[in-house]
Amino acid sequence: MKETRINALVSPEGSLEVLSKQEVDRLKDKSEGGLYRLFRQCALAVLNTGIETDDCKTLMESHADFDIRLVPQPRGLKLELINAPAHAFVDGSMLRANREHLFSVLRDILYTSSIPRTADGFRRDDPEDITNLIFHILRNAGVLQAGRQPDTVVCWGGHSINRAEYDYSKVVGHELGLRGLSICTGCGPGAMKGPMKGATIGHAKQRVANGRYIGITEPAIIGAEAPNPIVNELVIMPDIEKRLEAFVRTGHGVIVFPGGVGTAEEILYLLGILLHPDNRDLPFPLVFTGRQENAEYFEMIDRFIRQALGEEAASKYDIIIDDPVRVAQTMKHGIDEVVTFRRAMQDAYYFNWMLNIDPVFQMPFEPTHESMRALELHQDQPAHLIAANLRKAFSGIVAGNVKEQGIRQIQQKGPFEISGDPQLLAPLEQMLEAFVTQNRMKLPGSVAYSPSYRIVQGAAA
Amino acid sequence: MKETRINALVSPEGSLEVLSKQEVDRLKDKSEGGLYRLFRQCALAVLNTGIETDDCKTLMESHADFDIRLVPQPRGLKLELINAPAHAFVDGSMLRANREHLFSVLRDILYTSSIPRTADGFRRDDPEDITNLIFHILRNAGVLQAGRQPDTVVCWGGHSINRAEYDYSKVVGHELGLRGLSICTGCGPGAMKGPMKGATIGHAKQRVANGRYIGITEPAIIGAEAPNPIVNELVIMPDIEKRLEAFVRTGHGVIVFPGGVGTAEEILYLLGILLHPDNRDLPFPLVFTGRQENAEYFEMIDRFIRQALGEEAASKYDIIIDDPVRVAQTMKHGIDEVVTFRRAMQDAYYFNWMLNIDPVFQMPFEPTHESMRALELHQDQPAHLIAANLRKAFSGIVAGNVKEQGIRQIQQKGPFEISGDPQLLAPLEQMLEAFVTQNRMKLPGSVAYSPSYRIVQGAAA
Amino acid sequence: MKETRINALVSPEGSLEVLSKQEVDRLKDKSEGGLYRLFRQCALAVLNTGIETDDCKTLMESHADFDIRLVPQPRGLKLELINAPAHAFVDGSMLRANREHLFSVLRDILYTSSIPRTADGFRRDDPEDITNLIFHILRNAGVLQAGRQPDTVVCWGGHSINRAEYDYSKVVGHELGLRGLSICTGCGPGAMKGPMKGATIGHAKQRVANGRYIGITEPAIIGAEAPNPIVNELVIMPDIEKRLEAFVRTGHGVIVFPGGVGTAEEILYLLGILLHPDNRDLPFPLVFTGRQENAEYFEMIDRFIRQALGEEAASKYDIIIDDPVRVAQTMKHGIDEVVTFRRAMQDAYYFNWMLNIDPVFQMPFEPTHESMRALELHQDQPAHLIAANLRKAFSGIVAGNVKEQGIRQIQQKGPFEISGDPQLLAPLEQMLEAFVTQNRMKLPGSVAYSPSYRIVQGAAA
Amino acid sequence: MKETRINALVSPEGSLEVLSKQEVDRLKDKSEGGLYRLFRQCALAVLNTGIETDDCKTLMESHADFDIRLVPQPRGLKLELINAPAHAFVDGSMLRANREHLFSVLRDILYTSSIPRTADGFRRDDPEDITNLIFHILRNAGVLQAGRQPDTVVCWGGHSINRAEYDYSKVVGHELGLRGLSICTGCGPGAMKGPMKGATIGHAKQRVANGRYIGITEPAIIGAEAPNPIVNELVIMPDIEKRLEAFVRTGHGVIVFPGGVGTAEEILYLLGILLHPDNRDLPFPLVFTGRQENAEYFEMIDRFIRQALGEEAASKYDIIIDDPVRVAQTMKHGIDEVVTFRRAMQDAYYFNWMLNIDPVFQMPFEPTHESMRALELHQDQPAHLIAANLRKAFSGIVAGNVKEQGIRQIQQKGPFEISGDPQLLAPLEQMLEAFVTQNRMKLPGSVAYSPSYRIVQGAAA
Repeated sequence: MKETRINALVSPEGSLEVLSKQEVDRLKDKSEGGLYRLFRQCALAVLNTGIETDDCKTLMESHADFDIRLVPQPRGLKLELINAPAHAFVDGSMLRANREHLFSVLRDILYTSSIPRTADGFRRDDPEDITNLIFHILRNAGVLQAGRQPDTVVCWGGHSINRAEYDYSKVVGHELGLRGLSICTGCGPGAMKGPMKGATIGHAKQRVANGRYIGITEPAIIGAEAPNPIVNELVIMPDIEKRLEAFVRTGHGVIVFPGGVGTAEEILYLLGILLHPDNRDLPFPLVFTGRQENAEYFEMIDRFIRQALGEEAASKYDIIIDDPVRVAQTMKHGIDEVVTFRRAMQDAYYFNWMLNIDPVFQMPFEPTHESMRALELHQDQPAHLIAANLRKAFSGIVAGNVKEQGIRQIQQKGPFEISGDPQLLAPLEQMLEAFVTQNRMKLPGSVAYSPSYRIVQGAAA
Repeated sequence: MKETRINALVSPEGSLEVLSKQEVDRLKDKSEGGLYRLFRQCALAVLNTGIETDDCKTLMESHADFDIRLVPQPRGLKLELINAPAHAFVDGSMLRANREHLFSVLRDILYTSSIPRTADGFRRDDPEDITNLIFHILRNAGVLQAGRQPDTVVCWGGHSINRAEYDYSKVVGHELGLRGLSICTGCGPGAMKGPMKGATIGHAKQRVANGRYIGITEPAIIGAEAPNPIVNELVIMPDIEKRLEAFVRTGHGVIVFPGGVGTAEEILYLLGILLHPDNRDLPFPLVFTGRQENAEYFEMIDRFIRQALGEEAASKYDIIIDDPVRVAQTMKHGIDEVVTFRRAMQDAYYFNWMLNIDPVFQMPFEPTHESMRALELHQDQPAHLIAANLRKAFSGIVAGNVKEQGIRQIQQKGPFEISGDPQLLAPLEQMLEAFVTQNRMKLPGSVAYSPSYRIVQGAAA
Repeated sequence: MKETRINALVSPEGSLEVLSKQEVDRLKDKSEGGLYRLFRQCALAVLNTGIETDDCKTLMESHADFDIRLVPQPRGLKLELINAPAHAFVDGSMLRANREHLFSVLRDILYTSSIPRTADGFRRDDPEDITNLIFHILRNAGVLQAGRQPDTVVCWGGHSINRAEYDYSKVVGHELGLRGLSICTGCGPGAMKGPMKGATIGHAKQRVANGRYIGITEPAIIGAEAPNPIVNELVIMPDIEKRLEAFVRTGHGVIVFPGGVGTAEEILYLLGILLHPDNRDLPFPLVFTGRQENAEYFEMIDRFIRQALGEEAASKYDIIIDDPVRVAQTMKHGIDEVVTFRRAMQDAYYFNWMLNIDPVFQMPFEPTHESMRALELHQDQPAHLIAANLRKAFSGIVAGNVKEQGIRQIQQKGPFEISGDPQLLAPLEQMLEAFVTQNRMKLPGSVAYSPSYRIVQGAAA
Repeated sequence: MKETRINALVSPEGSLEVLSKQEVDRLKDKSEGGLYRLFRQCALAVLNTGIETDDCKTLMESHADFDIRLVPQPRGLKLELINAPAHAFVDGSMLRANREHLFSVLRDILYTSSIPRTADGFRRDDPEDITNLIFHILRNAGVLQAGRQPDTVVCWGGHSINRAEYDYSKVVGHELGLRGLSICTGCGPGAMKGPMKGATIGHAKQRVANGRYIGITEPAIIGAEAPNPIVNELVIMPDIEKRLEAFVRTGHGVIVFPGGVGTAEEILYLLGILLHPDNRDLPFPLVFTGRQENAEYFEMIDRFIRQALGEEAASKYDIIIDDPVRVAQTMKHGIDEVVTFRRAMQDAYYFNWMLNIDPVFQMPFEPTHESMRALELHQDQPAHLIAANLRKAFSGIVAGNVKEQGIRQIQQKGPFEISGDPQLLAPLEQMLEAFVTQNRMKLPGSVAYSPSYRIVQGAAA
């Protein structure tokens, strides 16, 4: 069935269907500055739902004959698909979730591209303008809902976890759903799908008709982590940093399930922000949870955090093992505190304006052999900056594992080299090795993990 | 947690909240003719969702201190619950599904009791009036939706199946949901819950917002098979025969999962109707399905049907093993034929008026030692009447297994005796023994199955 | 255009479309006990919207070829109309309001007829059962809305008022609508249409999407006072007394515009109820209002009430001349008091259970020459009973003016004779003469008013 | 009551309530480049609904103490109003229509200002970019509804017409509403309010819940023609030319009621476009209608058009006198042709992309003494350009009558001088004089009309 291809004409569902002639032209434009290439790539990723592949490049290559065309109609726009993957269809008609996702992709690509690059209003490197851009993309996508009570729990964790871990994430989602909470994830499979599936059942039991299953992704990752069909609000952010900022400004709390390097990167990102002196008093519920078998994994993470970032960092989260009810209650309670705080501060429920995000977390980190080697991995800096640099290290390793560009660099020049203060590098190396051992570094297509990095002790400035 | 009790005041959800003073009085009336006793019993059953018990009596005894009171309010009626089972609550507030179910119980008990017993309009034993009563109860419950396209798949099967069987029923439900079909069951756990859960996920993926999860039950069975919280339309029919008629007039097709005696009873009931000469040309999709492990079970059933009812009976169903997609496609296709047929006949989509149900299937069968022994179990009658009598035999056995009154009779006078034509009784006995062997005759509380029946070869008239 | 006739097949809008076979048969039944005749008559009246006729008989005769048929369909019921009046259609398709009204008629005729006449549950002459019947008809019609805040203002007044009076009633309706209040009337033209039209604009300005325009009528009057198309909830009560009780139990306040005998009858009915000792402390806002030109009319009414019923009666209402804003504010304020009272008493918002209506106001009064002459018109009785008897007198006069049966009696035996205590009869006669002079006794078809009554001073028992 | 002022905190209704910090700051910015001044002016205009004033300047001066402030809240934005006109309130709380309009003003001012002036994407003078800008403003305002069947009738006509003319426009609106058509106007009183009021009643009778009452205005005119509260979609276009283009691209047909110079300007604008060779085959229903008394007015217009633009121009419209049903049927039929045409051309229903609008109609015309004198008023050019120049002449006269800036110029330098070809100027002068005679040139505050123009025969180049 995987080889079958289907041609189809699909109508929009849910979002933008009214385009100007200029917008249609931009989406059709196959030239360098045009949007066609990006649109086609993301559309294909979206249709690949449910297929386990970690590799964007393979995906694109194996669907070289896929094409997508815009067909204006009196009642709005339709999309014509040529040689679309058959598993996006049920008995010949496209799954409605996939139709929605296609049009979400179209909406976000178009909107992001309409933000002028050089206009006097917008400065690419200005922290305030970056936050503003994120705000606008989210608002345009309908994610910022003014009247809604805070209810969004961001779930992070590996996308290639085992069945028991997956089932656990479902039960946690079920308990969250029973308490009326909504789910936001990075939108792939595994720990990003389980909580949504569980919450769907929980919402059904509580007759929650407006439950949210928000998926926030970005063009470089969407191919490897296609949105699962439960996702009913899909947003394509321009890059990984804006995606992460979107998570922490939109979500009202975060749950971390066991994962690999990507998950560790997300944990460091979040701790780096929460450790910023300005954010000290901001309530932000954060729970690490897993089954009894995962207790050890979180102990390892916990140990690493205490060693690398100090005890204050460890006070920012709860570790709850094998107790979905308590996880949900802790999130519910934490979000109640967020509500109280925002109301006292007159800050918006739907966007965490008060959270101070250091520019270092906003600027795209381009992992190259040079930038990786230049990372400041020493303890002679505030905790939130240590976190920032460690985060970049993980980011590079993830890119080398699963991102098209990263993989190509490694193929060309060998693994990235990481160097620095042994007091930081020792626990880091220890953890990375554990990831490999625990099979949490899965490389698509390859049987054994061939690391994308190499630790070069002491070579730091 | 099972021992905890909660007091609560709950508001109605979804249905009848405007009662007259007389209606409130009738529900409060604890005298013989009053409705309080029945209302309390069904309400308790409904709150017992999720708890595995087969035994109505035990349930009532273990909640002797449970009470339910009606509290009129300016905006409608509230219910006050005293010592309600804690598992109907999430963090202290009642699950919305349970609130809905409570008010569905109230609605149906009230409505059914308002149908006068002796008025000139209504004759208790008249087949047409019985069908009419069923129609009215269903209409009053909002089950008959005029504008809706036929989509209701009745799922029958055991409520105490194993995990793998349960998972299979979920996958079938998922495929039905992906095709926009709705589920109707007898509303307990097991094969009556799995398809609903699966369909919930399927509906979420297709953004089906008005998916139906109809549970049809009756006062004698609700205690043993409490509605699962997915059920979003709960109907309490007055007795088992009207419940069965409600299934076949409301549903547009039937899927049978592996079960025990109850399931066999349902199969015989349905075949008995479909074999009636008047119904010969009526399309009615009927599928028996299960995992590879259940193939043998259905072969046994199939063999029994062919022996007892003949080859024509076997032409009424498809047996599909381990192929949820084909089950769903078969139902979808079959329902399309139902649509074509009803449109051609100008018959209603929402109620199968044309189905001729022989009065023998409508009259309540009261299993007693006398009535069980008097069953006409011989082949010298039309196939649909053989089915009718076999159905009664199973009905008695089920009553002896799980129904309060049945259990009491067996306790007092020993097992029911069944006698008749060996050509019928031999395959019957064979099948019943297989049920016992396969542990499909589970008696609540008891470890080994002590049969509620005894086959007395040749003793028939 | 008035002569044109149209044949059409119409689909139901808004209400009952799922009928049982028995119900369809009853509606088709042209025999004495069948419902066809009543259904056809009310359906024709409903389609006659907007045509000014006071005469049921003429209406029926001039549409002798009108027919209505029930056409069951897979998706519910349709109605086939033969020779329907063309003005119920816009460019060949029926006005949606008319379609709704047709199905409301069908719903109420069917429901009312289903209440058994002789069943043990229901006693025709029992005050409690009468109230209960009214409750059930209103509930079945969807008029009793549990969650809704009290907002229903009943507007009474003449249906054949002049343009300026009509415009005034529109302005009052506009001010009520701006305050979110809904309108309930007897559903004909004139003062029963103006407030609805005004409220429609007021609701539009306040974006009130669920504004109610309730019309309560009965078979004997519907021909003369066809529901105007603004009416979005039409109820057909079985007779005039139940219609009046429906008004006072459903409405949260009453406004009386200038009218004729019918209006006077309604005033006496309402005062008779409010003067009952049990109702003394019940808040019930009641306002008489009109333009400057109508001041005299209300002075006359006021004088008559003070003379006939005493000063307490006069304390029950406010007379507000030419000040729509104050009328609306008075109603709004009065309804706020109703809310406070009901909440304190835990009485329903949607049905005034606490209002004690003396049986004399519930029993149908059949005006004949005998019953009219037998009226107890003397002051030697409690005020609320004086009101009751005066009300009957007016009721007879109205019947003689506009109702089919009343007109026939007058044609056969001459005017009704009314006799009694001169202290009551003198002001009564004075007022009736004023009605004639002011042209408020319009007889359909006739140029000069030939009275349907004759006052026979002192002849009372 | 007109002098009363009210302070209030109002919540948004219906539209944009999620603003970024930057957006809030821009709206608060009282400096030259900031939006505060414009926002305050339009907000005040919107609150002045129902008050008859033709003069923006007077309005602003008489409410010098009015202030408006943005108050961010956890659930979105509120507006605080200081010294707001009391007639926007009912019993102390603001009319919901006014609340909506306030937030529509905010939305459009903000959006229009966010379109960068110098970005590479947008060229101010490019016809395609202008159309695109209009498209974007309308889309952002939610006016372009993809799935909707064409139904929008633009109604043009005087805002200071007499009562009988107003009533006629209401009856026309009623007939349009009965046929399910929606109304779009310039949003002031008079002929811009009447059709909406009539359509509201027509929609109520047909239960049209999504009837549209679109008001399209611009900052310079909103003060003189405040949106009436029926308007449920208010759009503020940047200037008069874009407002006119918005009318003809959004509307599916146009009805012109009697008016004055402004109406004549609109007629010339529309004919100028329809006469463009590219638009020859485009269906565009256009009806001039009025009461019997207005027949002469339209004869005058008709004569002027035939003389100035030729017979082809006269073939573009129907004149229908005193027949609202035929007006509505003509529009309905014409819109059906629009549907057929757009479907054949695959052009959008919601935006008339195919209509070719000559740049001369898009460029803002700034009436000054110089530009007015320079108008090319001779017949030696294509008909659509003659129309363009005549349109500018009328535009200047309207500005001199009612617009702040225009009035100031006239006060300083005397009336505008218009010169040109006598064959054009003679009928022009004749018509203008007729306007004065018929009192269709009402100047706010002044008793007699002192013309804002002077015809200088033969002085043209």
